[in-house]
Amino acid sequence: MDYCIFCRIVKGDEPASTVYSDDEVQAFMDTTPVNPGHLLVIPKAHAAQLSALDPSTGGHMFKAAMSIAEALRHSGIRCEGVNLFLADGEAAFQDIFHVHLHVIPRFKDDGFGLKLGPEYGTRPDREELDDIAEKIKAAIRQSE
Amino acid sequence: MDYCIFCRIVKGDEPASTVYSDDEVQAFMDTTPVNPGHLLVIPKAHAAQLSALDPSTGGHMFKAAMSIAEALRHSGIRCEGVNLFLADGEAAFQDIFHVHLHVIPRFKDDGFGLKLGPEYGTRPDREELDDIAEKIKAAIRQSE
Repeated sequence: MDYCIFCRIVKGDEPASTVYSDDEVQAFMDTTPVNPGHLLVIPKAHAAQLSALDPSTGGHMFKAAMSIAEALRHSGIRCEGVNLFLADGEAAFQDIFHVHLHVIPRFKDDGFGLKLGPEYGTRPDREELDDIAEKIKAAIRQSE
Repeated sequence: MDYCIFCRIVKGDEPASTVYSDDEVQAFMDTTPVNPGHLLVIPKAHAAQLSALDPSTGGHMFKAAMSIAEALRHSGIRCEGVNLFLADGEAAFQDIFHVHLHVIPRFKDDGFGLKLGPEYGTRPDREELDDIAEKIKAAIRQSE
């Protein structure tokens, strides 16, 4: 494996402001936060993308994110809501190729938001949705 | 509990294009997709927000989202990357108060993106990050 900043953090070779760590996952402050209190939850074992992540570790990351989200709301940091965000693949804005789940404290008028594409708001009819669902179901079956 | 559209879907009282269902979770097409193939993974038991969600069910939702993300990439639907997104609380854009994890297929130039606040790009120094981490750690300890 090439140089990986998150693997270096796990090994203690790179500084990080860690809030939580166990056998499988570690959570630390994002160094370019969207809002103060923005954290990342990562698996300790390197996994570049979701496809390489052990599902049980993924589940554990989510549980850690849930308890951190709850802690943020009681930490004194401004937090009226929380977004969880994960980018898998370059087209989805993944920048560091070691899986990371963002935990972002939110408050009214913080300036963070979603940009939606030109097609957003178009409501496909049920037949169209069912057709897409069939394709995804077929792909799920194939992976079993 | 008041009227909940997602509880109605779970009960079969409301139509949905479902791709996956087990004892704990259900996944179906979002009716106002960001991109074609946009899905929601929900817990079957009503939980308005993350704070009310059983952590083990949360972990299970994430594992389901992982396998659906993988299926999307092999479904024939345009999918070069995937975003997972969860909005917890009104300030974080939660619209339907039954926890739901978005699984969004992404492709280059699809128009979807993140709006960042005016402070974004400011890199707090390590001392500042450590101070914030301490507050969150204290809140985690208090919840144990």
